[in-house]
Amino acid sequence: MNKNFSNCFVLVITTLCIYSNANAQKKEYPKPDPMTPNMTEFWTPQPKIVTPGKSSETVIPAPSDAIVLFDGKDLSAWEDSNGNPAQWVVKDGIFTVKPGSGSIQTKQKFENFQLHIEWRSPETVKGNGQGRGNSGVFFQGIYELQVLDSYDNETYANGMAGSIYKQTPPLVNAMRKPGEWNTYDVIYSAPVFKNDGTYRIPPTVTVLLNGIVIQNNTTIRGTTPYIGLPETVKHGAGPLSLQDHGDLIGFRNIWIREL
Amino acid sequence: MNKNFSNCFVLVITTLCIYSNANAQKKEYPKPDPMTPNMTEFWTPQPKIVTPGKSSETVIPAPSDAIVLFDGKDLSAWEDSNGNPAQWVVKDGIFTVKPGSGSIQTKQKFENFQLHIEWRSPETVKGNGQGRGNSGVFFQGIYELQVLDSYDNETYANGMAGSIYKQTPPLVNAMRKPGEWNTYDVIYSAPVFKNDGTYRIPPTVTVLLNGIVIQNNTTIRGTTPYIGLPETVKHGAGPLSLQDHGDLIGFRNIWIREL
Amino acid sequence: MNKNFSNCFVLVITTLCIYSNANAQKKEYPKPDPMTPNMTEFWTPQPKIVTPGKSSETVIPAPSDAIVLFDGKDLSAWEDSNGNPAQWVVKDGIFTVKPGSGSIQTKQKFENFQLHIEWRSPETVKGNGQGRGNSGVFFQGIYELQVLDSYDNETYANGMAGSIYKQTPPLVNAMRKPGEWNTYDVIYSAPVFKNDGTYRIPPTVTVLLNGIVIQNNTTIRGTTPYIGLPETVKHGAGPLSLQDHGDLIGFRNIWIREL
Amino acid sequence: MNKNFSNCFVLVITTLCIYSNANAQKKEYPKPDPMTPNMTEFWTPQPKIVTPGKSSETVIPAPSDAIVLFDGKDLSAWEDSNGNPAQWVVKDGIFTVKPGSGSIQTKQKFENFQLHIEWRSPETVKGNGQGRGNSGVFFQGIYELQVLDSYDNETYANGMAGSIYKQTPPLVNAMRKPGEWNTYDVIYSAPVFKNDGTYRIPPTVTVLLNGIVIQNNTTIRGTTPYIGLPETVKHGAGPLSLQDHGDLIGFRNIWIREL
Repeated sequence: MNKNFSNCFVLVITTLCIYSNANAQKKEYPKPDPMTPNMTEFWTPQPKIVTPGKSSETVIPAPSDAIVLFDGKDLSAWEDSNGNPAQWVVKDGIFTVKPGSGSIQTKQKFENFQLHIEWRSPETVKGNGQGRGNSGVFFQGIYELQVLDSYDNETYANGMAGSIYKQTPPLVNAMRKPGEWNTYDVIYSAPVFKNDGTYRIPPTVTVLLNGIVIQNNTTIRGTTPYIGLPETVKHGAGPLSLQDHGDLIGFRNIWIREL
Repeated sequence: MNKNFSNCFVLVITTLCIYSNANAQKKEYPKPDPMTPNMTEFWTPQPKIVTPGKSSETVIPAPSDAIVLFDGKDLSAWEDSNGNPAQWVVKDGIFTVKPGSGSIQTKQKFENFQLHIEWRSPETVKGNGQGRGNSGVFFQGIYELQVLDSYDNETYANGMAGSIYKQTPPLVNAMRKPGEWNTYDVIYSAPVFKNDGTYRIPPTVTVLLNGIVIQNNTTIRGTTPYIGLPETVKHGAGPLSLQDHGDLIGFRNIWIREL
Repeated sequence: MNKNFSNCFVLVITTLCIYSNANAQKKEYPKPDPMTPNMTEFWTPQPKIVTPGKSSETVIPAPSDAIVLFDGKDLSAWEDSNGNPAQWVVKDGIFTVKPGSGSIQTKQKFENFQLHIEWRSPETVKGNGQGRGNSGVFFQGIYELQVLDSYDNETYANGMAGSIYKQTPPLVNAMRKPGEWNTYDVIYSAPVFKNDGTYRIPPTVTVLLNGIVIQNNTTIRGTTPYIGLPETVKHGAGPLSLQDHGDLIGFRNIWIREL
Repeated sequence: MNKNFSNCFVLVITTLCIYSNANAQKKEYPKPDPMTPNMTEFWTPQPKIVTPGKSSETVIPAPSDAIVLFDGKDLSAWEDSNGNPAQWVVKDGIFTVKPGSGSIQTKQKFENFQLHIEWRSPETVKGNGQGRGNSGVFFQGIYELQVLDSYDNETYANGMAGSIYKQTPPLVNAMRKPGEWNTYDVIYSAPVFKNDGTYRIPPTVTVLLNGIVIQNNTTIRGTTPYIGLPETVKHGAGPLSLQDHGDLIGFRNIWIREL
């Protein structure tokens, strides 16, 4: 996420505004020194590599009660962050990030859910570390589950595919090769807030990558910024959003079930 | 589970013995009246029916770090409850309950794990309610995730397939038809005990049936007896066991990953 | 609670009505057999007796941000279950149950809170077991923290003073003698519900009796009926209520802080 | 804690050594940039001031099952960090930090417990912010509950008395004046570790300051260093330790009950 984070920036600024309004202080208090990005990047231990079993080529369709967010045809369930039609490119039953067009998000907002989403990075590898196959899935528009081509691509553990970005590394590295489809099966529980805007219950998430548990009822500690520490921002239902980080990540077969 | 519960009975008796030894009381205290089975059977609300997406016919093989408990060839990873070779019937890459031979369990013992297991009930339906396609998967040999042919087969909600038996019904009824394969993907966290034998942290479990969340970080309240209330029994690592309830349930593609 | 439970009965009936409406089923399903009271009464192990340090005679006043529910003068913060003025008897800075007048409850409703309450049973002991010094503190009008003269008075463990009634016994028996004041310091977290009326997060409670931890972040499993199993009832903020069980329990120095 | 943290430093260094050994990596990975202390100091929102009710002058003695760690007579339950006799000064039923002599710790090690401890800062105020009445109570020798004279003394919220140091501020500021006794009543649950040294369950703590809840089942995220982020260090039972931060904090009436 260290290359193209303009969208991320917008998020953080919005966030801080809301927060400052809610806690308006007449008095000036000292502020923490600015941090550098790598202060929240932890390389060790590197998650063990696990090879997932070969899956079938065929897509497994959504359950009967799921909200289908992408069925291969169009982006009608999505919009950009200004509410305009999503510009990403639909072709051959998949859609692909359109670099520079910005992140996209679902029109519908969600709280607790089960999510299924499939993604792949380009078969031809370009770049390395965070500069290779980078995108992200944001729960409620705020909390990032990292998307990255982490196959044979070293980076900080809490920035690999399947990490809660800059917080919690995946338990193992269960990536498929570039050009092959990866699946995230996600069980997400939204936070519950106290009146003062802090978490009574923080968000939690379980993630399977290619059928393998990589986040096991993980507590999400707050926002997932590129620079600095997690913050708590009071919020309600929010969209699922996908990050434009400049890389040509493709997506298919996206559905969600409210829990 | 109301037809053939001899194995279950043995469990309960053992349990009570251990418990009584640990808390030996010279004094005689009143004992609760005996309960009847249906006092812990709750029919409403009946979980909503959800049709899972059609899966591929092909089995997805185990991840590289999994312990394969059944790969289609033999029951070498299993034994009966006396430590003798498992008598269930292996044929055509699957194994089937041998009624009357008793439950089987893994030789290896486990604590926290991810489990994948596939099962089906006979295509020709026989019986109804708990008398149709009944078996069970016991975590650490103690806590039962119910196996039952719950497709178009009414029974108490907390006794359906995917229930924590007589405790927590599945969130939805996501069964495939008799003769088709169902999959359980399980994330199980073992209990942690206090010195006095009560739970410091009770067991919890997340279950996906055919890819659909049916138990979402559910707290298991104790043992899962046919008659009476859950009890707390102090224990360590335990086997995975499968119940002989007299029905011809078939199993395939079983693997487990320690977490 | 086994002597005078008319108020409790009203609660349960109301509860079931609400529940049935919400889950109206045209179809008739089997119902569980009725249970007897003692099926949920567990005598062993009996909590170990611990003698609390002698406290000062003087009452410690409420913190500056507390809502004082009784300061020794009147019952203006309380009403009976019909919204009429509370009939219990105020005298010499304490108030006492008026048997037959029914339970009383705060006019104000609460969610998460810290509660301080002091109570004593009559110095002259009358009756035994549940028939001696019986009352109760109900969180949100629903979940009972048992009040009982459990000093040298045998009863079922999950019905002693400090039990979550018929659910969880106190960790130890830290009672003072009849006629002496006992204090409950309670930290209560209200449940959070899913749309279907089940708990997303059940209520939890920590209780100190006379300064000694007797409930340590205990999960409350549902309602606390005299007969039968805990049930889940969807509810919002609710009053603190005190039970008229026919015994002359006295109360003083009651305050609450919203958390 | 920003003045005299030599003892703290020793802790951190030890910690990192253990950790590095356990995860010995032949390969060199990038390391995070060093942080400055104030990057983890958060001033807003400042906890609301709450005045506790006036307590009695008399000490309430320990419950009958408590381990008395200080009863006014001697430091026989304590030692310095090298296992030598504790040098702090016992006089008139209390003991006081001996600046420069180093922190002291209990000879006995603990896991889960209830702790009662009383402390006061000198009546004559000297210094300000972290330089005034600074000490700390370390659970299992690792996790610091801050001790500071926070009465009318501004500092960062997560460094006030009752904070989990540099992690979680107290819910409110319920301090008594310099020279008056403050009480901490603590319910601490030790972490449970996974085999890989990460938390399966992190430590949690509830704290009452002068009878008022200031930490409500707070999750402790790891070590509590002066500089940098919380780290996870695998450990077993550990002592209770008290910090020599150069200020003349007095202590009395310390007892602990294993849970």
